[in-house]
Amino acid sequence: MDTPTFTLGELAQRFGLELRGDASRAITGVATLASANANQLGFLANPRYRRELAATRAGALVLRADAAAGWAGDALVVRDPYASFARIAALFEPREPFAPGVHPSAVIAPDAVIDPDAHVGAHASVGARSRVLRGARIGPGCAIGADCVVGEECELVARVTLVTRVRLGARVRIHPGAVLGADGFGLAMHEGRWIKVPQLGGVRIGDDCEIGANTTIDRGALEDTVLEEDVRLDNQIQIAHNVIIGAHTAMAGCVAVAGSSRIGRYCLIGGAAGIAGHIEIADRVTVQAMSFVTRSITAPGVYGSAVPARDARAWTRTLARLNRLDRTPAG
Amino acid sequence: MDTPTFTLGELAQRFGLELRGDASRAITGVATLASANANQLGFLANPRYRRELAATRAGALVLRADAAAGWAGDALVVRDPYASFARIAALFEPREPFAPGVHPSAVIAPDAVIDPDAHVGAHASVGARSRVLRGARIGPGCAIGADCVVGEECELVARVTLVTRVRLGARVRIHPGAVLGADGFGLAMHEGRWIKVPQLGGVRIGDDCEIGANTTIDRGALEDTVLEEDVRLDNQIQIAHNVIIGAHTAMAGCVAVAGSSRIGRYCLIGGAAGIAGHIEIADRVTVQAMSFVTRSITAPGVYGSAVPARDARAWTRTLARLNRLDRTPAG
Amino acid sequence: MDTPTFTLGELAQRFGLELRGDASRAITGVATLASANANQLGFLANPRYRRELAATRAGALVLRADAAAGWAGDALVVRDPYASFARIAALFEPREPFAPGVHPSAVIAPDAVIDPDAHVGAHASVGARSRVLRGARIGPGCAIGADCVVGEECELVARVTLVTRVRLGARVRIHPGAVLGADGFGLAMHEGRWIKVPQLGGVRIGDDCEIGANTTIDRGALEDTVLEEDVRLDNQIQIAHNVIIGAHTAMAGCVAVAGSSRIGRYCLIGGAAGIAGHIEIADRVTVQAMSFVTRSITAPGVYGSAVPARDARAWTRTLARLNRLDRTPAG
Repeated sequence: MDTPTFTLGELAQRFGLELRGDASRAITGVATLASANANQLGFLANPRYRRELAATRAGALVLRADAAAGWAGDALVVRDPYASFARIAALFEPREPFAPGVHPSAVIAPDAVIDPDAHVGAHASVGARSRVLRGARIGPGCAIGADCVVGEECELVARVTLVTRVRLGARVRIHPGAVLGADGFGLAMHEGRWIKVPQLGGVRIGDDCEIGANTTIDRGALEDTVLEEDVRLDNQIQIAHNVIIGAHTAMAGCVAVAGSSRIGRYCLIGGAAGIAGHIEIADRVTVQAMSFVTRSITAPGVYGSAVPARDARAWTRTLARLNRLDRTPAG
Repeated sequence: MDTPTFTLGELAQRFGLELRGDASRAITGVATLASANANQLGFLANPRYRRELAATRAGALVLRADAAAGWAGDALVVRDPYASFARIAALFEPREPFAPGVHPSAVIAPDAVIDPDAHVGAHASVGARSRVLRGARIGPGCAIGADCVVGEECELVARVTLVTRVRLGARVRIHPGAVLGADGFGLAMHEGRWIKVPQLGGVRIGDDCEIGANTTIDRGALEDTVLEEDVRLDNQIQIAHNVIIGAHTAMAGCVAVAGSSRIGRYCLIGGAAGIAGHIEIADRVTVQAMSFVTRSITAPGVYGSAVPARDARAWTRTLARLNRLDRTPAG
Repeated sequence: MDTPTFTLGELAQRFGLELRGDASRAITGVATLASANANQLGFLANPRYRRELAATRAGALVLRADAAAGWAGDALVVRDPYASFARIAALFEPREPFAPGVHPSAVIAPDAVIDPDAHVGAHASVGARSRVLRGARIGPGCAIGADCVVGEECELVARVTLVTRVRLGARVRIHPGAVLGADGFGLAMHEGRWIKVPQLGGVRIGDDCEIGANTTIDRGALEDTVLEEDVRLDNQIQIAHNVIIGAHTAMAGCVAVAGSSRIGRYCLIGGAAGIAGHIEIADRVTVQAMSFVTRSITAPGVYGSAVPARDARAWTRTLARLNRLDRTPAG
């Protein structure tokens, strides 16, 4: 894996950025302001880091016009420096080559179909009637059950499980330990014992979704659990059966969504937030980290219920006063 | 997998339901009220969905006598429609056939014992002195360590880990990514460094338990971590060492139970709730979602401490007033 | 695996403990006060259990001098009985022998280097340019990607994933289902769609760290995510990209740490606590379970924000009064 090199002029042209300074400067990588060297490109998106401009040794920066006034070096100027930096950084991402073909240690059901241009890695298994489409990459140790579809150019990094009836659109990326299509948690109490409610639905994942490490998405009871296109889930998230998540919604780590809830498009759900079951959340709703949504939300906006930590003795006193509220006349 | 067909009369007789209407109607599947067709059976258990009765195209419904008054079509009438529906739905669940035998890619310790009527799937491993009993199904990618027992008719769906000294009763079902029998988190600080406390116990799981995807149950420090019979755990749950969970208790996703706590029988623990260590919870206790139980609970009932999310600016004002409580004279 | 036997005198000498009683007493194991027999050693560290002294049948006890006054039997007396017990218990821990060598079913990249004294188990894979050093044990089903280092005497118990650019120091122990080095959650919104921000950093784990089952530690965006030496993480923890955790810090299960935060040395983070992104926490900070740290903490101490559960009707009334605070005059 040789280091690729681009001139600043090439980068400006490729991504439609305004070049200020030396078009011929060679860029061999990207880095933080604090660590970049003269051949590396840095970026400034968050004004908080503007004070680092004075000390950076970066060869050039991606930044906004207003910030560029404080920077005498070479620059790529753009309204949205973080997104542009992301696209430039992708040029420098080392990617292991995936050879098409099925590793000899993989176990493929006789009636599964693997596109000749797909890759199935070591110790992977693909179950009955499942299909792996063109350009898909199934990493080592993945277990794909029956009746699944892995769409074109999907990447299952390693040790991903698709249990049954899981259909992935194109370019879906799933990180290790994620489990899609396990039984939803359906129980009925009958004569003092639990009866399992069969989970007959599947999971449908739209194009360009990303699913984090050890995240779980259960299959539906009667109909499917659904992620629309471009949904982005971080690690350790739990999506219960029959949840529907609208396009372009992103969730930070450890969020839990209970069964049959419907979340809108362009929502942002903060880390470790909880969403109760059987509710609806409108488009463009932001839920703050560690908050608990118990009712439907019908208007866009920011919602929260988390309590910031403070000195434990002070917090204990606050709790005591809070409990005492119960016993005082209404106020 | 051909679609099975039953007449309404057969279903009534098989499950002891009251038949109203055409005993010869053929039922080929189950579905929601909204999507069912004339050959499918729907159900009405939650009064909230009663308004969907008018529009459903279901061939027949399972419902209570009081709800049946609002439904002119064929019906199976019963006091407990959800449980009956669950049992009927199981007839229509597609089940992949599991052939008895050990997949050639599986790795079995020389002194492990696999019943000839059990199945061990691709890329599974079974460690020293472990036993897999009659009718058990070990799915692809499972890793079973030393001194484990997989009871009769257990199902380890795929990529399940039993680390060491894990004994499963009969008919236990474990979903992908679950880890049973990892070391409990025992540490002692000694001269400025952590010493690991050896975890010498095991894990004991009773008959008919179900364990969700990516759930973890640690083995005990000196004695066992225990789930009694018919305990039902959803996904992403953490059960620390030496916890004991009583029979028929169910926990929703992302619950965390700290070490050495003892939870009663027939408890219901809501999603993402936390249970502190070294406490006892009585039988028939319900803990609400995202609540934190810090002390023993000695009486049945419903307990909670979760705060519902609201508009973030309003919540910020509430927090400010809450903190100010500290500084006002006691009320 | 024969049971090892030590005399009380041998144990006293080996660990520098004060012997009271019969130096020749044979000890064949360790156990709780309640279950120990005459050949087993118990311990008393928590004064709460002092009342169990009267009934125990333990052959000998490890305890402090003040507690020893209440115990007529043989004893090993020490200031720190829990740590000493931990070290003694390790003598009795059954350890499966790991033969050096690579299991025939493992798949090793041609340019990976496995020390001849290391073990690589069944169905494990090791990617390009990765190195497994002397005495390391890679359990069954582990997937190690490109450019990783598994340090001397590390133990990856089973089904661990190191995705890419993960470097482990010496004696690191990682439990099943843990995923280190997955992509950090970096997204930029551009013209109504998410762009993935490449994650070019790695993960660096110091000597003697322990990482629990199903815990996830993402790799950094530009620089590394770092655990210094002797950090101890329980199960189901999420460590986001570019987090730095100081030496000797311990976290209980289900903690979530958001991106770029820096946690000090000798911190104790309680179960299911959350740490917001881009903050710093000083050395020797304790965060209580289920609390949410939203700002930097600059002084050692105990911090919390969790609300203990109570009777649900009482809690509902408290919430109503809390909300009403908003609408009353301050004070």
